[in-house]
Amino acid sequence: MRYHLGWVDRHGNPSPNPSSQGKALRPTLCMFACDALQGDPRQAAPAAAALELIHNFSLVHDDIQDEGTERRHQPTVWALWGTPRALVAGDAMQCLGDLSSLLANGEVPAKTAMRVSQLLTDSYLEMIEGQCRDLQFEQRAAIEPDEYLEMIALKTGALIRSSLAIGATIAVDDDDTVAGVARFGRAIGRLFQIRDDYLGIWGDEAIVGKSTDSDIVQRKKSYPIVFAFKHASGSSREELTRLYALESMEESDVDRVMEVLEEIGADKQTNELTTSTAQEALAALGSLELPPWATDDAEKLVEFLASRLF
Amino acid sequence: MRYHLGWVDRHGNPSPNPSSQGKALRPTLCMFACDALQGDPRQAAPAAAALELIHNFSLVHDDIQDEGTERRHQPTVWALWGTPRALVAGDAMQCLGDLSSLLANGEVPAKTAMRVSQLLTDSYLEMIEGQCRDLQFEQRAAIEPDEYLEMIALKTGALIRSSLAIGATIAVDDDDTVAGVARFGRAIGRLFQIRDDYLGIWGDEAIVGKSTDSDIVQRKKSYPIVFAFKHASGSSREELTRLYALESMEESDVDRVMEVLEEIGADKQTNELTTSTAQEALAALGSLELPPWATDDAEKLVEFLASRLF
Repeated sequence: MRYHLGWVDRHGNPSPNPSSQGKALRPTLCMFACDALQGDPRQAAPAAAALELIHNFSLVHDDIQDEGTERRHQPTVWALWGTPRALVAGDAMQCLGDLSSLLANGEVPAKTAMRVSQLLTDSYLEMIEGQCRDLQFEQRAAIEPDEYLEMIALKTGALIRSSLAIGATIAVDDDDTVAGVARFGRAIGRLFQIRDDYLGIWGDEAIVGKSTDSDIVQRKKSYPIVFAFKHASGSSREELTRLYALESMEESDVDRVMEVLEEIGADKQTNELTTSTAQEALAALGSLELPPWATDDAEKLVEFLASRLF
Repeated sequence: MRYHLGWVDRHGNPSPNPSSQGKALRPTLCMFACDALQGDPRQAAPAAAALELIHNFSLVHDDIQDEGTERRHQPTVWALWGTPRALVAGDAMQCLGDLSSLLANGEVPAKTAMRVSQLLTDSYLEMIEGQCRDLQFEQRAAIEPDEYLEMIALKTGALIRSSLAIGATIAVDDDDTVAGVARFGRAIGRLFQIRDDYLGIWGDEAIVGKSTDSDIVQRKKSYPIVFAFKHASGSSREELTRLYALESMEESDVDRVMEVLEEIGADKQTNELTTSTAQEALAALGSLELPPWATDDAEKLVEFLASRLF
């Protein structure tokens, strides 16, 4: 678990590796929401840790499922220690996440702590449901862009949304405010994933920390691909179908896929969806009554998520 | 999930298969403890369901880890649908277990519900810790019987103990009573596993629902085996070591292992440990103030667990 979190090397020696520690997006969002609503962010710390652990548990299991051998610039857990131990490491991390969220009980009233556990558990069931749909998509020929967006709203979006909703719940006892913050979170979640999909094809390998063309090589049905398969016609469609039917893709096949994607405008469409989702996030933000510093930080976050290069 | 629980067949058609539904030991213990302490067992139902789901999540993942192809007279989930889908089914079942335990919140005060979640989560972290040690044991030559007993106290015992402790927590707000019930649960947990180990070697295949010799064929380091390796000397030790070093075991090798185990007295020792653990359980029971019907039922349970054939 410590290795996966980037705290130690594969031998267990303390060797913090910042590039393997992830962005800590979810705990940051959780503590931010609490702070922005005039709560005490320290009260949100156990739940914030829980969110990061739950997220990382899902990554450890995802890597087993996808047979991914590299994550955050280092070999994945299953690749080093085999599936059985990686499976149990993921289970343990999930369980520690649950335990951490229960620690909120010492910080806030039991009723609030129960609500936090409920929000966390509901959202990671959605996450698992999303993972399940994602697995089903792998075995299907055609995926509608809308189905894809619904899947990522579950797989990635739910936990990002609940990160903010949980922070808000700890700060205030007001359903409307929590719902407003959750709306902002829903947009942020989509924004994050759509940009991830863009970077998975057009990102810079050295910055992203995994082979840039891996989404294509792995036949990952990310947004640009789903969009392209939906809108390709004539020779573009034939070529995409031929390339995706190949036993394995060479460098030149990947280049050709990227050319076809660009001919169809998949890159442009992905960027447009990023922009419109960023606008949704800003609109949701506008309806919240936050102090200026918080609105400012949240706007910067939206801008960062919409334009990040890693 | 429904297939694993024995509710539907592999095509999803309702086809309840009682022999694939398990014994429901944990939920029964939970509701029993609540009832025996004059609580309302209906209040314990969500937690009881949670315990069964957590137990079954661990089985689905265990089968992946052990590459077990049959469980409760039917093919395992990963054997039918592959590791990725089995992994996600287990994760979902675990999460539903968490959600189910949170449902207790509607039935009992939030403080009690938090305690229930805490007991459940603590115990399934122990369960995962036990699973982790079990995996480590597979790669080690010598395991001390005491280490083995400690491992099963975690892997199997913890959830059985918490089943009773959770039922008690829902019925009464009294730490001493809950601790007493947990003591009984600890003994019951060991009793269950030691008898399981006996049946894994000397049980009747048709009744047990998996190949009787599988614990030997799979080189499972169960109690009789650990005991035998510890106490074997001279030619018995040489023979055991030779047999366990074989690439694969034939029927005749399994028979020879069983003979050696019996020469060393591993069967007798396992039965003696069963008897002394049953006595511990009865002693713990004696210190509880339960109504006669409950003491009677609990005694019958101890007797059943100590002598069951399946």
